[in-house]
Amino acid sequence: MRAGLYLPREIKGKMKPIGVFDSGVGGLTVVKELISQLPGEDIVYFGDTARVPYGIKSRETVIRFSIENILLLLKEDVKLICVACNTVSSVALPVIKNHFRVPIVGVLTPAVREAVYATQNKRIGVIGTPSTIKSRSYEIQIRELDPAIKVFTMATPLFVPFVEEGWLMGKVVLEVARTYLRPLKDARVDTLILGCTHYPLLRPVIQEVLGKQVNLIDSAKQVGMEVKKILSAEGLLNKNGKKGKAKFYVSDNPEWFRNLANRFLGRSVKDVSRVSNV
Amino acid sequence: MRAGLYLPREIKGKMKPIGVFDSGVGGLTVVKELISQLPGEDIVYFGDTARVPYGIKSRETVIRFSIENILLLLKEDVKLICVACNTVSSVALPVIKNHFRVPIVGVLTPAVREAVYATQNKRIGVIGTPSTIKSRSYEIQIRELDPAIKVFTMATPLFVPFVEEGWLMGKVVLEVARTYLRPLKDARVDTLILGCTHYPLLRPVIQEVLGKQVNLIDSAKQVGMEVKKILSAEGLLNKNGKKGKAKFYVSDNPEWFRNLANRFLGRSVKDVSRVSNV
Repeated sequence: MRAGLYLPREIKGKMKPIGVFDSGVGGLTVVKELISQLPGEDIVYFGDTARVPYGIKSRETVIRFSIENILLLLKEDVKLICVACNTVSSVALPVIKNHFRVPIVGVLTPAVREAVYATQNKRIGVIGTPSTIKSRSYEIQIRELDPAIKVFTMATPLFVPFVEEGWLMGKVVLEVARTYLRPLKDARVDTLILGCTHYPLLRPVIQEVLGKQVNLIDSAKQVGMEVKKILSAEGLLNKNGKKGKAKFYVSDNPEWFRNLANRFLGRSVKDVSRVSNV
Repeated sequence: MRAGLYLPREIKGKMKPIGVFDSGVGGLTVVKELISQLPGEDIVYFGDTARVPYGIKSRETVIRFSIENILLLLKEDVKLICVACNTVSSVALPVIKNHFRVPIVGVLTPAVREAVYATQNKRIGVIGTPSTIKSRSYEIQIRELDPAIKVFTMATPLFVPFVEEGWLMGKVVLEVARTYLRPLKDARVDTLILGCTHYPLLRPVIQEVLGKQVNLIDSAKQVGMEVKKILSAEGLLNKNGKKGKAKFYVSDNPEWFRNLANRFLGRSVKDVSRVSNV
């Protein structure tokens, strides 16, 4: 018997889990923030590890994968879906968001707001996967908030494999970061959006290359606040006072996910199951 | 009307194309050899670019994807299938090969034979994707041919993104190669199998790190010879004297494939179409 079966509808709604999906493990940096900011919420996470990465794939393919992932989370009866992937948020979300009744929160808008607030010299840099950068989604959103801001973007595709292989410091990754970030440094950006959920793990290297004075904006924290705001506005915050549970689904071998989860989440995960999303 | 409709069955068989598949673009290094060694053959290539890469994914997932790819090529009425991917050849081929009537050639056996022939000190190194190395397929095949040979293996996952991003030389990739290859150098291998279709593009860097005296075995050339041998034995060589045509299918955006094809094939490709293999 499912918990809450005889509870009034509005209480049942509050008890539903938050759904989170990503192409792989990167979204766990967002889960970490959700657990920290909303400790009472249950979370269902889906990582599409059979088809990871999304960041080198076309718009049509990313849209198709995203819809399949949303449908999978809807089967888990989630009250809100958090798209913890910058590629999906950039490429697919503008197209598919309005087709669903469930609120869907991406990682872009919260980071953009924070960056626009943080910049002093009105020069913002954005790094991301090739698909994210190609979509120009960050530039468009930043310009909507403040057309006077100059935006400098750079695709940094090697950062994802470096993070997944655990090469987070040392001269190789420092040299790669120097190569990628040189044009942004030359452009004198005072704020850099880390436009991929993997990049916060490279924060020390990126900060070293750009210098201490540059603000590094990672969206995870802002996304947590956004989710809290929406749940609160919709009267959907779980207030039963118990600690929430997190459940993890992946489309490929749970072992790979479990091994990497620790790096992204800061703790080990046990409840990982394999499901098919297609 | 299809060509050869009124031709006797054995001639129609000879005129069928060779099917080649890979997780993405790497298999084009094999196509290059096939075109060079069998210029009269038509080739149908499928690159599963929507789900690339395979090398970090589980055995079950790689087997599932491989079967789907074979079924797609069978729809093209191919006379032989060449698996131009070391991960599939290592992980899936031993399981699925015997389920199909069409001859299926992988990239492992030809390279293993060449390496066993080449080694003088009976110390062979193998580099490949994590899935390939984990499968121990090279060790097993080498030991079958000569149990006295010592095999030293190393997963080198960052090599694929480096090749796909076009970082083929320079101090960063040299440093990565030094880090990966140090244990193989220390093990004094005199022969190294480049166990991934991407790696021939890093041949100069790998040779620099290991030294000129080490034989680098890349399977593409051997695979071409193997395919020729099988077609000849089966009486399926196309001897009509015309230059063969190559057709390319991908599961994601043809543009990404077209951009990379030049690097792997040494010439540009035009006839690229998008298809769904699932």
